[in-house]
Parts: sequence; C-alpha cells; structure tokens
Amino acid sequence: MYPYRAPIHDMNFLLTNMSQSNNEDLDELKMVLEQASKFAEQELAPANGPGDVEGCKFKEGSVSLPKSTRTAFESYVNAGWMGISMPDTWGGQDLPETIGSKVGEMITSSNHAISMTSALTMSACKALIAFGSEDLKQCYLPKMISGEWTGTMCMTEAHCGSDLGLIKTSAKVVNDTTYKLTGTKIFISAGEHDSSENIIHLLLARIKGAPDGVKGLSLFVVPKIMPDTNKRNSLSCIGIEEKMGIHANPTCTMSFENATGFLVGQENQGIKAMFTMMNEMRLGTALQGVGLSEQAFQKSYHYAIERTQGKTLDKTKQTNSAADSLIHHADVRRMIMTQKAFAEGGRAFCHYCAELLDKTKQKSDDYAVAEKQLGLLTPIAKAFLTETGLESASHAIQVYGGHGFIRESGVEQIYRDGRIATLYEGTTGIQSLDLLGRKVLGDQAQTLLSFTKDIYKQCKSIEENESTSKANKELANMLLPYAKEWPQLAQQIGMKAMQDHEEVGAAAYDFLMYSGYVTLAYFWLKMTNIASSLENSKLTNNDNPNLLSAKQKTAQFYFEKLLPRAQAHKNVMLSGKASLSNLQEDEWII
Amino acid sequence: MYPYRAPIHDMNFLLTNMSQSNNEDLDELKMVLEQASKFAEQELAPANGPGDVEGCKFKEGSVSLPKSTRTAFESYVNAGWMGISMPDTWGGQDLPETIGSKVGEMITSSNHAISMTSALTMSACKALIAFGSEDLKQCYLPKMISGEWTGTMCMTEAHCGSDLGLIKTSAKVVNDTTYKLTGTKIFISAGEHDSSENIIHLLLARIKGAPDGVKGLSLFVVPKIMPDTNKRNSLSCIGIEEKMGIHANPTCTMSFENATGFLVGQENQGIKAMFTMMNEMRLGTALQGVGLSEQAFQKSYHYAIERTQGKTLDKTKQTNSAADSLIHHADVRRMIMTQKAFAEGGRAFCHYCAELLDKTKQKSDDYAVAEKQLGLLTPIAKAFLTETGLESASHAIQVYGGHGFIRESGVEQIYRDGRIATLYEGTTGIQSLDLLGRKVLGDQAQTLLSFTKDIYKQCKSIEENESTSKANKELANMLLPYAKEWPQLAQQIGMKAMQDHEEVGAAAYDFLMYSGYVTLAYFWLKMTNIASSLENSKLTNNDNPNLLSAKQKTAQFYFEKLLPRAQAHKNVMLSGKASLSNLQEDEWII
Repeated sequence: MYPYRAPIHDMNFLLTNMSQSNNEDLDELKMVLEQASKFAEQELAPANGPGDVEGCKFKEGSVSLPKSTRTAFESYVNAGWMGISMPDTWGGQDLPETIGSKVGEMITSSNHAISMTSALTMSACKALIAFGSEDLKQCYLPKMISGEWTGTMCMTEAHCGSDLGLIKTSAKVVNDTTYKLTGTKIFISAGEHDSSENIIHLLLARIKGAPDGVKGLSLFVVPKIMPDTNKRNSLSCIGIEEKMGIHANPTCTMSFENATGFLVGQENQGIKAMFTMMNEMRLGTALQGVGLSEQAFQKSYHYAIERTQGKTLDKTKQTNSAADSLIHHADVRRMIMTQKAFAEGGRAFCHYCAELLDKTKQKSDDYAVAEKQLGLLTPIAKAFLTETGLESASHAIQVYGGHGFIRESGVEQIYRDGRIATLYEGTTGIQSLDLLGRKVLGDQAQTLLSFTKDIYKQCKSIEENESTSKANKELANMLLPYAKEWPQLAQQIGMKAMQDHEEVGAAAYDFLMYSGYVTLAYFWLKMTNIASSLENSKLTNNDNPNLLSAKQKTAQFYFEKLLPRAQAHKNVMLSGKASLSNLQEDEWII
Repeated sequence: MYPYRAPIHDMNFLLTNMSQSNNEDLDELKMVLEQASKFAEQELAPANGPGDVEGCKFKEGSVSLPKSTRTAFESYVNAGWMGISMPDTWGGQDLPETIGSKVGEMITSSNHAISMTSALTMSACKALIAFGSEDLKQCYLPKMISGEWTGTMCMTEAHCGSDLGLIKTSAKVVNDTTYKLTGTKIFISAGEHDSSENIIHLLLARIKGAPDGVKGLSLFVVPKIMPDTNKRNSLSCIGIEEKMGIHANPTCTMSFENATGFLVGQENQGIKAMFTMMNEMRLGTALQGVGLSEQAFQKSYHYAIERTQGKTLDKTKQTNSAADSLIHHADVRRMIMTQKAFAEGGRAFCHYCAELLDKTKQKSDDYAVAEKQLGLLTPIAKAFLTETGLESASHAIQVYGGHGFIRESGVEQIYRDGRIATLYEGTTGIQSLDLLGRKVLGDQAQTLLSFTKDIYKQCKSIEENESTSKANKELANMLLPYAKEWPQLAQQIGMKAMQDHEEVGAAAYDFLMYSGYVTLAYFWLKMTNIASSLENSKLTNNDNPNLLSAKQKTAQFYFEKLLPRAQAHKNVMLSGKASLSNLQEDEWII
C-alpha cells in the first residue's frame, strides 16, 4: 500500500497564483499547510486502513472507536487542528477558509472517518457562532473548538432524509430557552463514541404546536452530558449501523427521551440555522470528492509505475524486458490522467469557493455578490466533485486489476468510504434540484449569467493576448461557446418549466453535470493560462517548471477527454421529461 | 430487503419473439425457465445476503463456505442445474445456450458467489470436451457435469494477470500424458472449499524448454484428489483473500508442488484451449452485468414505490399526503429507467450472443459467419454490460439514499460483489484492445461492416414499413447514422494506427463504449419494432400488452437518455493519443 502524500506543491500553486486577494502572510500560511501535511501523512493516514478493518463496536449504549482511530483523533485534538478556521475569541486560529479548506482536504484524504467527526464539530460551532446566544457560545464553543467535545448534526429520522419537513422529533417548552426533546434520529455520525468527554448534538425538532413542514422546525443544542451538573442527559445511542464503508466512524441511532435541549436562534427558524451548517458541510463534502480523486490518483500512479504487465504500444517507451510498466499503456494513463484532472481541477474549484466564503465572512465590499455566487457554485461543487471523486476511486480499482478488489491494495476502501459522499449532505439529485430550481431558475439565471460572463471574459482575454500560447488560445476557443450556451440551456428549460414544473426535475441532473464539466474547464483554463505566463516570465523561482508544463498538458487532456461529456449531458437534458415519465404503473412488470 | 424475482416475462418475450430459429419445443423450454426461476428465487437468493455476512473461513489448508452458501450449492447440484447445457453423452441435459444463458442470468442475479463456481466448472468441462482425450473426458466429465466435483481456472500468478505470457508455473514431463506441475497461482475462485468431493483444476503452465510468452503455455488437468488412487495430489490452498465482495466465494492462493497433472490438447497449445473457456466465461460475465442491472432495477423499483419523500413536481401524480413515492420524482425515475434499459437491452444482446453460440456448436450452415460475429460481439458484451451493470448498481445505492450505504438494504452488496465483473476474465481495457485491435482492425473491419449492415437493414426496413409507428421510425432514423459512422470511426483510427500503434490503445476504451451504446440501441430498436407489430396484430395472446407498450417506451428512453453518450465517446476517441501521452516522467510530481 502506497502512503498518502499531501499535494502541497499544488496547494501552494493555487495559493500563490490563483488567489484574488493578496495574502501578505503567504509564507506563514504555507508553513501551516506544511505542518498539516506532515500530520496527515504521519498520524492520520497510517490509521486509515486499520480503522476500516477493526471497525466500531457497540455495547450497551457505548461505542468504542477502533484503537488506531482513537489515537489519531487524540493527536488531531492535541495538535489543535479543530480550531484552525475558528474565531480566536473562542480559542481558534482564525485562519482563512483558503487554508482551512486545504487542511480539510488533507484530513479527508488521509482519514475519511476522522474528517467527518472534525467537520461536523466545526459545522456545529459555526451554527452556534451564527445563531447561538452568548450563553450557549460561552458554554460550548471553547471546548468544542479545542476538540475536547465533539459535535453532531441530528436531522434524519427513519422516515425522512432528504425531506426534512417530515421530521417528528418534538420539543416541549420548559422555559424561554430550555426544551424537552423526544424522538429518534438515525444516521448520526459519531453520535456516540469514546474519544470525547462530551458530545454536543445539534438537533432539528418541532416545538409542540408549530406548523407542519420545514417552517415548523427549530434547532436545539442537546448535550450528552449537562455542562452545569455533569450528569447524563436523557439521550442514548441505541445501535450503530453495519455499512459499506467508513467503518471507523460510528453511524448511530440516537434516542432522545425528554432530553434537555436549548434553542439555537429563533423558534421555527431551525432550517435556516441548519442550512448554515449544511452549506459549509456541502463545501466540505466537495473537498471529500477532491480527496477521493487525489488518493485514487496517487495510489494508481504508484502502482502503475511499479507494476509491469504487457508490452506497451508506445514505441518511445518500449524496453527489452518481457513487460512494460502499466503507466506506459494508454488506457491506464487515460484513467490516471482522469483522476489527476479531477483532483487538481476540483482543488482549484474548491479554492475559489473558499475565497468566496472568506469574502462573505469578512463582509468585503463585494460580499453580496460573493454570497450569490457561492450559492450557485455550492451544489455544483458538492455533487460534481463527489461524483467525479467516485469515478476516480473506481478507476483506481480498475488500474489495479484484480488486485484492486483485494483489501490489501487499499483502493477498494477508497471507493467504499467514498460512496457515502454523493448521498449525505443532500444527494446528487437534491443538489441538482437546488441548482437548477432554486439557484438558477429561481434567480432568473442572473447569478449564472454573471458567472458565465467571467468565463467569457477569461476566454476573450486569452484569445486576445498576443503572448498566450497557441494551445491555450485553442482551449479558450473551445470553452467560449459553453459560456454562451450554459445560461441559454437554463432559459430553454425554464420556458418548458412554465408549462410543466416536472421539466425541471427531468433536466436537473444533466444540467448539474453539464455545469460541473464547464466549471472545471474554466478553472483548468485559468490554471493553464497562469502556468504558461509563469513559464514565459522570469518569475518562476517559486514554481517547479515541471508543474507549470504539467498544468498545461493536463488542461489539454481535460478539454479533449473529459469536457466532451458535457455535450452528452446537454443532449440528454434537452430531450425533456416525456421518456422519463411515460411508463405507467402497470407497465413496470416486475 | 426485497426478494429477487426472475424476469421470466422478459425472457419469454425474447425466446418467443426475438429468436431467429424456430424452437419447436418452446413450451418445454419455457418450463425449464420456470423451474429455474423458482429455484433461484427460493434457494439461491435467500442465501445471498447471509453468505456475504458470514464469509469463507480458511484454516490449515481447508476452506469452509458460509453455511447458507453450502446448503444452496448442494441444492443446486442435487437439482442437476450444472449439466443444463452440457452434452447428454456425459450426463447433461443438452439444452441450447439460449436457455442455459437465461438460467445462468438467474443464478448470477440471485447468488453471484455460487454462480462463479458453477460457471467455472462448466467452462472447465467445455475445455475438456473440446480438447481433452477420451480418457480424460471419461474420468472427469460425468462427475463434474453432475456437480459432484467442481472445477477451476488457474491462470493468474502474483506477477501476471492480464499478461499470461509471463506465467512461470512449470511442467516436467513424466510420460506422454502425465506431468509434474510446480508453481503458485493466485486469485483462484473456489480453488479450495468444502462443498465438493474433488476439485479439478485446469491450469496453464510452461513445459520445461518451451518457448517464452503465450506460445509456450500448455493446459493441464490437475485434480485435488487422484481419481484412481483416491489420494491427495501434492497441491494445497495456502490462503484466501480478504476482498471487497463475493465473500461467499473463496479467492484462493494455490500452491502446486510437483503435483500430478495431465495434458489437455497439444503441448504449447494451452492458450488456445484456455481461450475456449475464456470466451464462454466472458459471455457468462456479460450475463453477470445484466444480472447486476436487473437486481439493481428490482430493488430500486420496489423501494421507490414504497418510500415516500418530498412532493413530486409531476402534477398528475400529486397527492394530498405529506410526501409522494420516490418513483414519482423524475430524477429517481431517470436512474430506475436506466437500470431497466440496461437490463432488458443487455438481456436481448446476450440472447443474440447465445443464439450465435448455438449456431457455432451445431455447425449450422452459417456457423463460420456466426463465429466471426460472436468474436466481435463478445468483448463488447463482456465489457459494456459489466460497466453498465456497475452503473446500475451504483444507481441503486443512490435511489436508496443514505439507506443504500447500509448493509441491511442489500444494495451495497450488489455493487461490492459486482465490482469484480469489469476486472476478471479480462478487464475492460483488455476487452477494448481485443475489440479494436484484434476483432476490428485485425479483420479490416469486415465483420463489423457486416454487422452494421444488419443494423442498417433493420433501420431501413422500419423506415420503409408503412405500418410501423411514427415513434419507431424516428428511432430507426436516429440509429441509421451510427450504422454508417461506426466502421468509419474504425477506419479513421486504423489510418492513424498505421503511423503509430499507440493510437489504438488511446482510442480502444471509447471505441468499445461507443460500440456498446450502438449495439444496445440496435437491440432496443428490434424489440420496440417487434412490440409494436405484436400490438398491432391480433397475435398478442402470449404477451402481456403492458409489456409491449413498456418495451416501446423504454426504447424511447434508451434513445433519448442513454444513446447520446455515444457521441461523447466518439469525440473523445477521435481526439487521439497526444493528450494521453504528453506528460513526461518528471511532470507527474506526486
């Protein structure tokens, strides 16, 4: 099994060259990444395989994590990584999201199971920071940000996952801030475990008498142990799931029986608060997608270099030995280049989203614009990067051949762990409806138009710049029609949807995937353009010249081998709903 | 977990309406399918989940199967299913492949682990029938065909899987027919287990002094227990693999230490004999792909009917309840219709291949043509139907949402078990090279041209038939350009390949996937055309009218929602090798 190596070179390329804002303390930030990379490589990655094999154990309401996971999580807490992008008021390090997200990628790449607990804890903190009372903040934030206490997000119930409006867990008023919560929540990641002194549940419930649907949901903080009395709250884990992957993170069924909880924000405003958590979790899940592609890429590359099998058809690579390295077989390279293009393109996309997030937090001049654009890009990043991450993971199994099916190779775990990413925090279908229905059509495509204008400008400026390479001009030329076509597609579907709303549902997935391929092409175009300028200038001291040429060649690959898929999605989305909905009940015959 | 139901209605549709030959004993054959369906549903399917959970155990050279698997396999043997398409001379039932393959699909759909042991045993029998001496046949065939003894295929060694030319296992001559075999084979499915009195290994090895590469390989029969003396042969299982799926079928490492073996066929002609097994195994693996789509379809459909979540956008389906069935959400239907289209289209494709196989065996007048066409279609069926089977399996997880990730749902097992199908019996990459390099370019595209002529004729006859529905005429019109374009694409790549062989490797995967989408469109066109004729005629007694309308609607779906992917594959394959091979060694930076 090949060890994980954090892609620091690529992260530094983005920080140095792809940032809109000038980071004055760039060297300091790079140091943080360097430290995080060592931590991920040396402490988290080695615990990943053993955690999968050992799994979590449930016994009489208690859950024990695998030994290696517990040790690695303790190191994570002790090293203070939990607070990396949290406010210093509460003990955090207050680093920008552009750094926090890169550390996040390293953590999820090296240990998916641990990254979930840390991401959920940070999201819970963010919801408390945004909506919690001063008392709640003081009570919970310091210990959560230090990592002594972990957090959860309790939404799903047995009968409702995607459709939160159906939530039944009820809240009875005790006083202004205190409630008694009763209900059963399922799929609660790290809902119970033995690596934290306390577990702080953020829970959606319905106050008695509240309206039906999502409008009647309120958000509560429900601690496992009451901070004031140190007594157990009346909630318990009543079981953990047997599942496909992420065996080192317990998926708990939590029973709340008149448990004491505290309202976060206003009554019946829970869904809004929960979406604060949710949106950042979605960006975090997008990073998991990048991590899937990165891990898959690394393991595939190393195997393909070492493993010899068959003679290559590439004359320049032929040797006298009986067989050549897999990497010299075109079809293997196709898969490895695909992983690389998704990993680096996705990383650039996430870097951009992190910058937008920083803008919205710093309330910079253009924060309203940034917020809108982030709203548009979040479902694309979440769904497209996890879908492509899974494709990369599957390619890794394929590159390894039969060995990829064997646990020892480590690649089948990437797929098994990763398979959750297109499901949780809103499935790909949910993201697609959010994108097309809410973020595009619900906005008369204004935000999309402004984003495609950026793409258009980028293409034009490359085409018109005399010093740009011919290759890059060609890529710009390939992307240009997409910038025009993308909002037109939205318009066409919008027209049909005026007659029949179902047309949105029928087109949503393909619209999202189309959007993903075009968005990634945009970031690849930006990268290759910068790489070629840097190559031409004398300012290449900080960049490995091989990295600059590799960026240009990988961009070429992306445009030739991956972007064409957008056209298939376009044709499918334009074919409308009829063939999807024609089959009548008694025609299924099953 | 929803029980498996064999798709008898669809199989009967194919037998009755899509067969080129007239089956005089059609009713009798349908009875066999009926019996097989009961057996698969009642005996094999219930053992599938428990077998996965329990797994195989290895202890001191012995392997025990999961209890449920052992019981189900015993029933399989006792009911005589092993001999279904074997010659009656040796105790088989001599049924045509069109029946054998349908029984095979039911077995693999209901229990992938068991289907592997049965398929390998049957393939071993076929190699013996084709190449074995009379003595070998008499010694082994009766007990293998009765299922008392099982068979294996021992090819892979630690350093070689796809590249058999590297095989090191050696054979030392004892006398004309007897050899001593020494070497270690890995990935031997059911190489050792406790459900058979004896295990008969068909093994590839190199006789001392034989040439290097595949030309020096010979095939041997190596029994676990010597039939004449009843003594153990000197071979043993030295371990089994921990793997992603098919936990109920042991993947064994087999050590042969001067083991006694008997030559099958001629010296150094082993690869030819092995490919007799291999080609039929590839068609069997194609059926596994169909089985993956079928299982995924059934489980997704039932869940989507029962599970309510969210309000549908389809006005005609809206109810007063808080949430509607998943099946009424367009994106869920997209996934389920995709599974259905792949399952039924793939089944029609496999039915056609089974007919070709029957022709080659019966040495019918056109058997030489059939053999060529089967050679062309086998890699397409194997690779395309397993790739699409995996897509279907992944959709099933997606339809279930978070529940799909949980073992209890049964759908994640479909994916985990199925993931092997694009790897074994030649990976998708190997099939792609076989198709484009050997079967198309190596044949100057003659066989492809004759197949596309069939497609062209079918399209034309539909277009010109006045009684054909407008919808079907449109589909024929959509397929027509593909019939013309497909061999042209081969020609274009062939031209490039004359300059540079690597162009074949670079285009092979996309050429195969393109071929798969077009081939399936052809079978969907045939089906919808027959369905519409039957609907118009009065001869519908034997067919459910709902099935006939469903065929036409599903064909529509296939053409609108899946066939457009062929265009993306076309554009990618035409973009050539440059962007695949440009990256130099020091540009990977990892």
